[in-house]
Amino acid sequence: MANDTLQGNLHRGIPRQGASPHALIHAIQGTLADFLAAQIGSLDSVDPALGRFARTARDLVLAGGKRLRPVFAYWGWRGVAGPEAPLEPVLPAFAALELMHTFALVHDDVMDESDTRRGHPTAHRIFAGQHEQDRRTGDANRFGAASAILIGDLCLVWADQLLARADAPPIVRAYYDRMRVEAIAGQYLDVLGESQPSAWSVERALLVARHKTASYTVQRPLQLGLALSGRTDDDTDSAYGKYGLAVGEAFQLRDDLLGVYGDPAVTGKPASDDLRTGKPTALLMLARKLATPAQRAELTLDPAGAVNPADGSGGLTPAELERRAQVITETGAPARLEGMIQERVADGIAALATAPIHEDARAALIELAVRVTHRPA
Amino acid sequence: MANDTLQGNLHRGIPRQGASPHALIHAIQGTLADFLAAQIGSLDSVDPALGRFARTARDLVLAGGKRLRPVFAYWGWRGVAGPEAPLEPVLPAFAALELMHTFALVHDDVMDESDTRRGHPTAHRIFAGQHEQDRRTGDANRFGAASAILIGDLCLVWADQLLARADAPPIVRAYYDRMRVEAIAGQYLDVLGESQPSAWSVERALLVARHKTASYTVQRPLQLGLALSGRTDDDTDSAYGKYGLAVGEAFQLRDDLLGVYGDPAVTGKPASDDLRTGKPTALLMLARKLATPAQRAELTLDPAGAVNPADGSGGLTPAELERRAQVITETGAPARLEGMIQERVADGIAALATAPIHEDARAALIELAVRVTHRPA
Repeated sequence: MANDTLQGNLHRGIPRQGASPHALIHAIQGTLADFLAAQIGSLDSVDPALGRFARTARDLVLAGGKRLRPVFAYWGWRGVAGPEAPLEPVLPAFAALELMHTFALVHDDVMDESDTRRGHPTAHRIFAGQHEQDRRTGDANRFGAASAILIGDLCLVWADQLLARADAPPIVRAYYDRMRVEAIAGQYLDVLGESQPSAWSVERALLVARHKTASYTVQRPLQLGLALSGRTDDDTDSAYGKYGLAVGEAFQLRDDLLGVYGDPAVTGKPASDDLRTGKPTALLMLARKLATPAQRAELTLDPAGAVNPADGSGGLTPAELERRAQVITETGAPARLEGMIQERVADGIAALATAPIHEDARAALIELAVRVTHRPA
Repeated sequence: MANDTLQGNLHRGIPRQGASPHALIHAIQGTLADFLAAQIGSLDSVDPALGRFARTARDLVLAGGKRLRPVFAYWGWRGVAGPEAPLEPVLPAFAALELMHTFALVHDDVMDESDTRRGHPTAHRIFAGQHEQDRRTGDANRFGAASAILIGDLCLVWADQLLARADAPPIVRAYYDRMRVEAIAGQYLDVLGESQPSAWSVERALLVARHKTASYTVQRPLQLGLALSGRTDDDTDSAYGKYGLAVGEAFQLRDDLLGVYGDPAVTGKPASDDLRTGKPTALLMLARKLATPAQRAELTLDPAGAVNPADGSGGLTPAELERRAQVITETGAPARLEGMIQERVADGIAALATAPIHEDARAALIELAVRVTHRPA
């Protein structure tokens, strides 16, 4: 293990998250760019309109954010495979997770009718803008949504194709399939919650967090990484499972706080986005549970106060949103959520303590647990 | 080859399309039902709401129509594997095509905002109906669309999982991926055409037909069937390719005719559905090309005459739709389309003439070529 050091890794040029997060992300970006260029070429040769369609998909994928799923999968793999294992054969699997994530984001944005993502227009907004100018807004929005649904579908299929290029034992696909079903099921619970906010609870919000976020963002990527190493090790699988759920839930709770108190300039989303849409997050559910009757009255979702998706009218004013955020603070829910985040981060780190993984991976995962749950965006 | 007869197949109980289309469809239905029951059980155990979600998906899959893609894949396989090959190991692959088809239909219906499919409410209409009663129609429609997008996503992932259970050489997945990308690309061209009908042409409509229908419904299923047999045979691959494109295009042209002249009681879709939405089909493009100036004026798409998706208003009246259908007939386009269908069916059958496949498969494919292009729905 003499080589399993920062210096050793730097000398070998193997990306090491703790030392150089950029090297790994650069490698993933390169894999994605090469794959997408080939797909664009093939669709372009059928019809230039399909080439443009595929290029829009590429731009959305490459614009990408934190690449968290590939990073967790990398450390899940690296923790068992060790620092000497060549990255090249497994890189397509990490990159595939990012394509799968673009699928999820693009479809989520259509469902939520979100206008921006990462500070840029969402896929359906981009396509609506490409629609023939002289026709009606309703048609442009419909074209935008239809095209974005197809971009998501395409990214899901592309993810599969890229995964197939990795040197991966069959069990990898089992983890991948489980992750995909959980992500879709979690998103359905999310949509269901928004459709019946009065029937929602802290417990149901945490169930959504476990499926939509924890499993899909941390737990399954880590376990998929383990599977990619070709070694089956129940202790590590179980440690990754516990760490993944705990840190993943904490990640979602941080997201809830950012959805109300985040800086739009940093998050790339409108201020108080979750309050605007009336999303029954764990934060809002906890606030309603802790609220005094007077506070609860102010927090009760008023359907008439929600945005009308048809014309964007009817939303709360900035002052009303600010007031609502203040009431939530006064219930003590944000402070309670911070405590829940700390607990989960501690649990996640503790789960790794005796896992038979390489020390640098353990250190990287501990650092990641803290970083992803204490982020500004 | 003495056994390669109708009697032989009947005695062995191996489904034979020409003899007993129901036996094959029954076997596919059984495979789907077993697979879906297991998925429902697993989602139910997470949350009853997810069980209900999955059951809605199951009902859509099992309600299913003609099972054309599995049937073509079956004959593609059977033509090379021969009558003695056991069906069991490859059945999951045929059934997977049907799950993939449910994905395509559900997403198409969301994009087209269709209310009915096969005479039943579409997925997004079913979910909109499940939405809390006391909230606004806009919210119910949004919940319906979001849930249907997720049902489609789930069916696409399930299709993958079911395909993985087939005893299939790796090349099968390559055909499957090509088919999926072509289906998505074809659907994008379709959506694009509807967004710019004035820029469309007969040639572009045929390009859509080739990608959206021919490749996905006939050509790739046949070639995937060939790949499933484990034998690579360029002559058969090429024959299936030519037959698939020709018969698939003819299938779409028949669809165009049914979209204007079909009996709603038989098609399960509203009368003159394509005229209502202004879809630039090969039929409509050809009619506009052949039309006299007076006829063309009557056929010019008037955006103000199209349905307003927001409230369903603004559509053509039944009398206007009937008049439009009559003008199309008067241009001679339907008769010309019938000729194009005959040509393609003849080309498709000719392509099979020298292919080295079993005689009963050749006979079944010839019968299918005629039947799917001369159907009432």
